[in-house]
Order: sequence, then structure tokens, then C-alpha cells
Amino acid sequence: MVNDLIFPDILLYLLDMVGVIACAIAGTLLAQHKGFDIAGCILVSMVNAIGGGTLRDMALDRHPLFWMTDLNYVIVITATSLTLQVFFHLYHKIDNALRFFDAIGLAAFSVIGFKVALHQDISPLIAIMMGVWTAIIGGLLRDIICNEIPLVLQREIYITASIAGSVTYLLLDYLGLNPGLNEFIMLGVIFAVRMLAVKFDWHLPSIRLVD
Amino acid sequence: MVNDLIFPDILLYLLDMVGVIACAIAGTLLAQHKGFDIAGCILVSMVNAIGGGTLRDMALDRHPLFWMTDLNYVIVITATSLTLQVFFHLYHKIDNALRFFDAIGLAAFSVIGFKVALHQDISPLIAIMMGVWTAIIGGLLRDIICNEIPLVLQREIYITASIAGSVTYLLLDYLGLNPGLNEFIMLGVIFAVRMLAVKFDWHLPSIRLVD
Amino acid sequence: MVNDLIFPDILLYLLDMVGVIACAIAGTLLAQHKGFDIAGCILVSMVNAIGGGTLRDMALDRHPLFWMTDLNYVIVITATSLTLQVFFHLYHKIDNALRFFDAIGLAAFSVIGFKVALHQDISPLIAIMMGVWTAIIGGLLRDIICNEIPLVLQREIYITASIAGSVTYLLLDYLGLNPGLNEFIMLGVIFAVRMLAVKFDWHLPSIRLVD
Repeated sequence: MVNDLIFPDILLYLLDMVGVIACAIAGTLLAQHKGFDIAGCILVSMVNAIGGGTLRDMALDRHPLFWMTDLNYVIVITATSLTLQVFFHLYHKIDNALRFFDAIGLAAFSVIGFKVALHQDISPLIAIMMGVWTAIIGGLLRDIICNEIPLVLQREIYITASIAGSVTYLLLDYLGLNPGLNEFIMLGVIFAVRMLAVKFDWHLPSIRLVD
Repeated sequence: MVNDLIFPDILLYLLDMVGVIACAIAGTLLAQHKGFDIAGCILVSMVNAIGGGTLRDMALDRHPLFWMTDLNYVIVITATSLTLQVFFHLYHKIDNALRFFDAIGLAAFSVIGFKVALHQDISPLIAIMMGVWTAIIGGLLRDIICNEIPLVLQREIYITASIAGSVTYLLLDYLGLNPGLNEFIMLGVIFAVRMLAVKFDWHLPSIRLVD
Repeated sequence: MVNDLIFPDILLYLLDMVGVIACAIAGTLLAQHKGFDIAGCILVSMVNAIGGGTLRDMALDRHPLFWMTDLNYVIVITATSLTLQVFFHLYHKIDNALRFFDAIGLAAFSVIGFKVALHQDISPLIAIMMGVWTAIIGGLLRDIICNEIPLVLQREIYITASIAGSVTYLLLDYLGLNPGLNEFIMLGVIFAVRMLAVKFDWHLPSIRLVD
């Protein structure tokens, strides 16, 4: 039943796994850069990939946590991290592809977090926050563990893309659109906003204090 | 019912909102200083203002979380952070007032956390910890996200003020004082200790290790 | 009943307390080094000693948290941290003993986390992770709060020792060994792996990226 609510169809599940793999890669790369050992790199890649969903489920009191009943998550992350560590010299080739998969992950994680919250009869405002939460908390925790200023809070359009997708969903839902179709439009909007932000170097302004 | 337990009266709720606004301001100022974008500043201000209460509710298994049923929190924090970012040049005027509102927040958060825990039939020792937890974890998480050494653990009387208030409450409760009145004495004690610490530069000793 | 599940016998409870004391010492030493005040040092020592178990119980939805019903934890940690801060000049004598007690703590925490998860009818893979989680998350949080790169992810055999113990347990359990005896073998394996790693300076390889 839990799986019912989260993954109504196989496509969203596959996109979710793409996002998990992208996050596992990003986590492993940063952890390697910090000189962490093999086990440390796997741990950071797990935090990156399932940390956001874990805190979301704990905040929404959904137990058992999604990765405790579906072992694919832990297995896929461990396999990804180990593979990357063994073939680390592929790094430069991976770098470009990573942005593409990362955007898929951002979209899939946002849709899943948003849907899970909506299913709990929660205010749409909180559902939007849970979409953002699921999508970015993993990367935030990764940067905290690696003692870096969190990337998602700085110069990249992550939070905005996730919110844009959720707001689009709510608007179309209000107009009576079929939820299944709406979900894919939401996925597309987030993916498009993120990829356009990468391509044209869009970023939200940051108001620096003088002195 | 949840609101019943947490906010028996409108005054404590108002003081709580004052604390939330003070935390949102403190979070936004630090996030701006770190060069985070608009969305990043809002996120840090949320963590600062409701992070402690969120972790307290998760630890005490109180669901849904308080800000999921009362949207005022999210709205007030977002409005505060956005307003501050637009009129950031008021910073220097804000700075002095901030210590005053921050002390109100410390007192209100401590009372709320302490009461919530007492209502769950928990040991007074744990209730004291939950008061401290609610009052300081938000600022702790803010500093962690911004990659700073946590301020509340260093040279400021925060934890001590919160404990002093809780211990006063327990003593007066033992002597048979009316809980409603006792609560306001607790608020006053925490506020007074904190403001006196600021005014006379009190701080707990820190025993540095000689290399 | 909760205590029944976690501590079937007094020896494991005593070893757990040894681990708690070792973690409280480690947390206090790092916090002192960072110049935190007395209350800050106590807070860091609590996070170090009971942070991992707290997050484990929250993830497994076990309420109330173990330290809320058994006040010994909070009392022992506070007493340890205060004692150490008062007699801090014993530091150099403590340092060597600390590795020994720390290894006991690693073993006891891993066994407790692993058992708690197995009792919840969870996949053995997740139980192994919960053992690691309980044993290392406290130290991870301590380093995050103190703004240090986490030690357990770097050059020390912690995660590996915990996994080795859990895997040994599962293998012997499959062969039909008595659970009580098996538990002590698991304790011994983790302790031995960790102490050997300290003695012979074993560490997992870390694959650094060439710039």
C-alpha cells in the first residue's frame, strides 16, 4: 500500500532510480574529493540519495521508511558508489552527463515528495515544501557532512524549479486536469526549468550585505 | 487539541511569533552574509525559526508537526525573510532590536518546549532538555548549514538561561503555584537572565586545553 | 518491554554505559578544543553519546526514545562531561585509555542497534545498516556541530568493524548458533577488528581524484 501511494506507475519509479543514481554519483564524487575512505564514500552517497526522503517520511510519520521495505534503494546506491570508486578515472566523462541525470532526479524527487504529502490531506503549501524538502535535503546533508557550504542554497536554481513544478500542478489541478497527466507535466516543468537554468546560467539574485 | 496543549493562551502564542520573527531575521542575516540566494535565505530562516520545534515534535512523536496544521509559521517566516532581503539596508538599525526580540524568542520557545514535554508525562529532567532543545536547536542547525561554529555553544548564555527558567518553574510548582502564573514567571526569568547576560557580558567559563 | 528488547542482560547494558562514557569523553574533549563553554561541552557530549541511538529510534518509530525512559543516560553523560572539564589536565592520561573504551562502545552500540532492528522484523541488510548507524552517527553529528570533517568517514576502521560483526552474527545464526552466545561473538569480533586496526594502523583505501 505504501508503494501504491508513492509509485503509482513504473515510469516514476524508474525516474526515481535515475535520480537516486545521480545523487549517489554526486555524493561519491564529493566524498572522494574530501579523501573519505570507501565506506565513507558509500555513506555520503546514501545520505545524498535517500536522506531527503528519510527526513520527509520521519516528518510525516510514515513508517517503515521507504528504503526499509524496498531494498533496491540501498543496493543501487552501494553498487553505484562502488562502481564509481573503482572506475573513478571516468570522472570527466561523467561530469557532463551528471547534470542531466541530476535534473531528472530533482524532478522525480519533487513529484514524489509533493504527492506523498498531498496523500496525507495536508495543506498544498506544506506539500510544496515537502517536494522541495525531498529534492534538496539530501544534497544539503551531503555538503554539511563534507564541511562545504551547501551548493543548493547558493548559485543554482533548485528550490525555484521544484516550486515552479508544484505550483503548475496545483493550477492545472484546479482547472480539472487528470492527476496522472498532471504529474508528468510537473515532472517536465521542473526538468525544463533546471536544464534551462544550467544552460543559460540562470540564478536567483543574492543580496550581499555591504561589509 | 494539539493547539490546546501548546498554546493555552493568546499571549504565549504572540510571544512565540515574536521569537519566530527574531529567528527568521537572524537566519536571513547570516544566510545573506554567506551569499545565499533568496530561496536559500528563506530556507535558512525556516530552519532557524522552526527547526528546533520540528525535531522536538519528531523526538516526542507528536504528529502532525505544529507548522503543518498552523500555516501562520511558514507564512510569517517567509514574509519576514523576504521583507528583510528587500530592505536589507536597515540592517544596522535592526541589529540592536534583534537582541531584544531574540531574548523573547528564547523565553517563549523554552516555555513551549518545556510544557509540551511535561504534558507527555515525561521526567522533569527530560522536560528541561526539551525546553533547551526547542530554544537552541534552530540556531544550531542554522550555523551548521552556514558552515559556522555554532554561536549558542560558545560565548553566549542561552542554554543556562533556559535551564534557569525551567528549574524556577519546577521549584515554584513544587511549592504549589498556579501553573498559568508560573509560566509567566518562567518566561520572565529566562528573558531577564538572557538580557542581563547581554548587558553585562556574562558568559559561562570555557576550559581551554593547553595544547 | 522496551528495555526487555534492548538489553536482555546486564552485561550488554554495562558495556553500553562504557560506550556512552567513552563517547561523552570524546565529545567533551573536542568541544573543549573548540572553546565551547561548559553547557556547550555537555551538549556535544550528549549528541556524541546518544545522537546515533536517537536517530535510530526515530527512524524505526520506537517511542518514547530510550533515554527518555532511562534517565541513567543523561545523568551519566552530564557527570562524565562535568568531571572531565573540572579535571581536564588528566587529558594525556585519558587519551590512551579512550581508544580502548571507544572500541567497547563501538561494539556495544553496533550490537544494540543491530538487535533492535532485527526485533522489528526488518531485512538483515537494514539491520546491518542500523548497527552502523547507531555506532557512528553520534560521532558524525559531534564533528558536524564542531565544524570538523567527520573522523569516522576518513582514516579509521569504524564502519567496516561494525559490518564485520553483523555479518558474523548472521552467518552463525544461519548455522543455528544460540542468539545469546552469538551476540557475544559479535561483540568480540567488532572489538577485535577495531583494536587491531588501531594497533596495526589498518585503514580502508581512499581513492583520491587527481585534481
